[in-house]
Amino acid sequence: MSASVAVAGASGYAGGEVLRLLLGHPGVSIGTLTAGSNAGEKLGALQPHLLPLADRVLADTTVETLAGHDVVFLGLPHGQSAAIARALGDDTVVIDCGADFRLTDPGEWQAFYGGEHAGSWPYGLPELPGQRDLLRGARRVAVPGCYPTVSTLAAFPAIAAGLVEPDVTVVAASGTSGAGKAAKPHLLGSEVMGNASAYGVGGTHRHTPEIVQNLSGVLGSPVKVGFTPLLVPMSRGILATVQAPLLDGITAEDVRTAYATAYADETFVHLLPEGQWPQTQSVLGSNAVQVQVAVDERVRRLVAVAVVDNLAKGTAGAAVQCMNLALGLDEATGLSTIGIAP
Amino acid sequence: MSASVAVAGASGYAGGEVLRLLLGHPGVSIGTLTAGSNAGEKLGALQPHLLPLADRVLADTTVETLAGHDVVFLGLPHGQSAAIARALGDDTVVIDCGADFRLTDPGEWQAFYGGEHAGSWPYGLPELPGQRDLLRGARRVAVPGCYPTVSTLAAFPAIAAGLVEPDVTVVAASGTSGAGKAAKPHLLGSEVMGNASAYGVGGTHRHTPEIVQNLSGVLGSPVKVGFTPLLVPMSRGILATVQAPLLDGITAEDVRTAYATAYADETFVHLLPEGQWPQTQSVLGSNAVQVQVAVDERVRRLVAVAVVDNLAKGTAGAAVQCMNLALGLDEATGLSTIGIAP
Amino acid sequence: MSASVAVAGASGYAGGEVLRLLLGHPGVSIGTLTAGSNAGEKLGALQPHLLPLADRVLADTTVETLAGHDVVFLGLPHGQSAAIARALGDDTVVIDCGADFRLTDPGEWQAFYGGEHAGSWPYGLPELPGQRDLLRGARRVAVPGCYPTVSTLAAFPAIAAGLVEPDVTVVAASGTSGAGKAAKPHLLGSEVMGNASAYGVGGTHRHTPEIVQNLSGVLGSPVKVGFTPLLVPMSRGILATVQAPLLDGITAEDVRTAYATAYADETFVHLLPEGQWPQTQSVLGSNAVQVQVAVDERVRRLVAVAVVDNLAKGTAGAAVQCMNLALGLDEATGLSTIGIAP
Amino acid sequence: MSASVAVAGASGYAGGEVLRLLLGHPGVSIGTLTAGSNAGEKLGALQPHLLPLADRVLADTTVETLAGHDVVFLGLPHGQSAAIARALGDDTVVIDCGADFRLTDPGEWQAFYGGEHAGSWPYGLPELPGQRDLLRGARRVAVPGCYPTVSTLAAFPAIAAGLVEPDVTVVAASGTSGAGKAAKPHLLGSEVMGNASAYGVGGTHRHTPEIVQNLSGVLGSPVKVGFTPLLVPMSRGILATVQAPLLDGITAEDVRTAYATAYADETFVHLLPEGQWPQTQSVLGSNAVQVQVAVDERVRRLVAVAVVDNLAKGTAGAAVQCMNLALGLDEATGLSTIGIAP
Repeated sequence: MSASVAVAGASGYAGGEVLRLLLGHPGVSIGTLTAGSNAGEKLGALQPHLLPLADRVLADTTVETLAGHDVVFLGLPHGQSAAIARALGDDTVVIDCGADFRLTDPGEWQAFYGGEHAGSWPYGLPELPGQRDLLRGARRVAVPGCYPTVSTLAAFPAIAAGLVEPDVTVVAASGTSGAGKAAKPHLLGSEVMGNASAYGVGGTHRHTPEIVQNLSGVLGSPVKVGFTPLLVPMSRGILATVQAPLLDGITAEDVRTAYATAYADETFVHLLPEGQWPQTQSVLGSNAVQVQVAVDERVRRLVAVAVVDNLAKGTAGAAVQCMNLALGLDEATGLSTIGIAP
Repeated sequence: MSASVAVAGASGYAGGEVLRLLLGHPGVSIGTLTAGSNAGEKLGALQPHLLPLADRVLADTTVETLAGHDVVFLGLPHGQSAAIARALGDDTVVIDCGADFRLTDPGEWQAFYGGEHAGSWPYGLPELPGQRDLLRGARRVAVPGCYPTVSTLAAFPAIAAGLVEPDVTVVAASGTSGAGKAAKPHLLGSEVMGNASAYGVGGTHRHTPEIVQNLSGVLGSPVKVGFTPLLVPMSRGILATVQAPLLDGITAEDVRTAYATAYADETFVHLLPEGQWPQTQSVLGSNAVQVQVAVDERVRRLVAVAVVDNLAKGTAGAAVQCMNLALGLDEATGLSTIGIAP
Repeated sequence: MSASVAVAGASGYAGGEVLRLLLGHPGVSIGTLTAGSNAGEKLGALQPHLLPLADRVLADTTVETLAGHDVVFLGLPHGQSAAIARALGDDTVVIDCGADFRLTDPGEWQAFYGGEHAGSWPYGLPELPGQRDLLRGARRVAVPGCYPTVSTLAAFPAIAAGLVEPDVTVVAASGTSGAGKAAKPHLLGSEVMGNASAYGVGGTHRHTPEIVQNLSGVLGSPVKVGFTPLLVPMSRGILATVQAPLLDGITAEDVRTAYATAYADETFVHLLPEGQWPQTQSVLGSNAVQVQVAVDERVRRLVAVAVVDNLAKGTAGAAVQCMNLALGLDEATGLSTIGIAP
Repeated sequence: MSASVAVAGASGYAGGEVLRLLLGHPGVSIGTLTAGSNAGEKLGALQPHLLPLADRVLADTTVETLAGHDVVFLGLPHGQSAAIARALGDDTVVIDCGADFRLTDPGEWQAFYGGEHAGSWPYGLPELPGQRDLLRGARRVAVPGCYPTVSTLAAFPAIAAGLVEPDVTVVAASGTSGAGKAAKPHLLGSEVMGNASAYGVGGTHRHTPEIVQNLSGVLGSPVKVGFTPLLVPMSRGILATVQAPLLDGITAEDVRTAYATAYADETFVHLLPEGQWPQTQSVLGSNAVQVQVAVDERVRRLVAVAVVDNLAKGTAGAAVQCMNLALGLDEATGLSTIGIAP
């Protein structure tokens, strides 16, 4: 018996990746696909890599077209999810790939996104301590942002084990697909190839409060997070470098043990053998996160590096993983830990 | 009941891609993995994207380590396959990703590769007319070269239907992974990024006689092929542009019909809707080939364009497809027509 | 005594490259810079690589702002050049980087661009036989298209020397900057990185009649040209592969001699030593074109390969070269044959 | 009157870039070019972008071939510079692009490079306070490492002005050319395209003590530096992100003033207007460094970002700049602040 699934925003990057994963998922049937300005077109013209769905015609994104499915994935611009979710009712599992329901603090929402705070839904990062249980059987899931996913997974074991001061800096190099498919001059191929740039510097990126929320939640008290995103010339992938001052007496072995323990039972997060450093290519197209840690003794600082495919585990893979939990399926159904390389 | 499979050359690009596909194949169990100079190392250090096999240790490539499997994939340097295949015996299905057994004409072998011609095996391009039957139950398969695969599939329907003169030019832009993992200065990232180059110009590339063989076989008489390979800045993918003079009276409709007919029943080769042109990204990681054709009326020439992932359908995907045929499985088992994009 | 120069379209790629070159030109002073929708902004925000001009404010593109200079470069959308040129009068040298005045045949203009034909100006490819004299002292210059420049230079020596049939195929792989700075989804970095695609297949690209015009002019009778452009993942550079059937009796030596002779006295076009094939990186940022030729004896076809930086010699470098000729300066002033590599 | 210049290591990336710059330098004549294993070959086969030097034949790297020039640039593997410099004598200006003479502390040399410490030469970063005077008329110059150049320039104004704690973290994303032209598997195009990776994590990279030396020298007491290099998919360019805790009471205005003051009179270092963030493309091929700073108030941390072309100002440009100072020429002769973009 398979669950019927609709995808809103099927012509975008998040929606396309959800579909790519659902096409390999044994427990779903793909129902209505919707779009905004691309409604009426065939999916094959917009997502030519999704060959089995090439002849599907995109419907308008409305409550009516989305209703009647067991699961609805939302890949919509900010602010559009709340009304649709309300109208769909609790019979439908709604999984929002957007930001609307990620933050619990209305003040933080106001400060970083502006406008009214829609509320918060169970946060779709099952690997966060205590989080998996909240996602089992959930009717609503807020899929984490891509930067927060990889940054949180790189940092939280050290925070949780009390190894570092609650003062974390994250510098994360991202491919361009995280910026979406809307055409903007600074995202043109001519601009991004052969070019690395910084943006949202000084703590202004909207993913900052989400990382703060995750790490503070783990610690039970405020964690300071300085977050700097970089844009680098690749389509997919984020490599996050997380640093924090080590507490006195903490050794490299303590650090390694904390990460090994945190991820011992996790399917998708993998601590690499000592001396091997993550590269984004290893997780391309997969739901895996690869992590490594080191201690810089000269400055007594923890350095953790993690990689994620921003569209897969960073968005659509997490969405499918959460759908599996919501539906009571095996969490890894339809997902892979195998990257495409080279 | 699953077939046991060994992979020789598991640390290379072809071997790694065979393993990536086999990890998603429901009918095999992965046995011995071998390497040359990397023997003794863990696969995780060399192919970190193949997470489920990270702890496998590479054995030496010998008849002894490879013996006892139902299927052996060979991803070896030229000239090493014959001795191993002979020793393994006919109980084992041997699928050679190298060039040793592709050419039927010893003179052509001598002219392009030099040294003694090892012979020829059933040629692993099931979509070539008449070829699929030769591959069902085969004990030996020569996997086609990546350029010949995409070039042949772009050209043969026009040749077979008698639409063009037997005088074909192919210009094919390839990513760098086709050149393998051996470190050479001109393949350094610094050299290939931001850079397009030509090589093997003037009909000297070793894949030339293979395209000739395929198209001449389809026509039943010699086809002239001028082949020019280009190296472009991407890891995977080939886009081949095939041109030939149209015979008098042939229309664009004739052309479209010929291609539509040739691929109507093929799982992996897809003629795009009119006006939509192939891009390599659409087939990344997949076993699909996307094809489009046009008629340039001003010069009365057919122009066909096809894309392939050189490591997937261009090598390892074809190898698995042929294994499926050899073992009597459904030809598409473990293979996908869905690309990873963007 | 330096010439005062204005640049219309200074925020675009062609205009920016003209400015980059003019900043190193000893005989000019940079006057008014204009833009369309970017008028009023500082150049530094739009072209941060042009540091010495960072504080220049962009004016509107009007006859008034452009008047009063010795030279005006136009980097404008199609159709806007004629009115401006007419109003500026013959005291001003006007160099149009757009297409409006390239084609001499109104029928071809109509077929490929539509709308009214504006006329034709001296065509800015000094290396074309007889062309340099037309450019010396010219008051109007139509800068060639990037594809026609490299394709013509790769092909014409063989045409001029009567070595090949007048039946040429061109397949040219281009970086993305040729498509300009207007944001379109298919030109996003996420779409073009890791991706090769074909477009304008079947002789429909607007640069086709321009190549025909050039080669037919050299031969004195019609030359057939089949042109196929490819988009490959790099910002700059075009590599053109030109093929044509060799006439009976023509040898590789004849071919080499023809190209060596044609370019013996040219500063910017360089025939590479035998066996060395062009790569776009070698001409990045420079005004050089590197060419190589081979004979494919098996198919009796000439294969010529040439590379150009589409923005430099392919557009802005040619524009400056033509300005030099128009002003009676040394043709190479402010231009380089040295690329930036790696 | 022009200075005669020899370049040792002319087939490598540093040597090639020195030559590219010298070809545009009005005060030098290019003399002997030497190489290691490439000796005897023509430069055109190895550095085809240096067209005017294509026919130069590479000599062996010996004291004899290098002697008799006014200036010798060394682009050699570690450990080879001392013997050559000693033999050349003080009549010759020797500019070492390698690491041998950068560090003043033998213990740090031993810890990071091993082997005997060769000594230290005037450090070729004229923008460092007090450093320019040491370089005027110098007979020996140690060109800084690429990472230290950009990291030091991003950090020192804040250190010098006493705005931050002496506890700096640097995360720097680099293109691949910094790793040189020696062929290694992990630097293959197939491995680096579409891939970001970390390496030398935990303070083990050899450029770490050099940054420490520079910043500690500015402060007059030890500065802690945690340095993490990243490899990103581009040939050239480094973007460095530097962070440090702000001292109490320091405002964003204090920070901006410190950087504006530090670079007010510098030709090559440019503080961008507020709100504009650096991108590596802006300095490609140029000797410029573009810098921006911000204060992250939530964590009270300074964030400075700077970009450099690792081969230009990061190596060869600095080498030429130092040659100018050594020879008493204008410091900017032959150097540019204009990048190649897009």
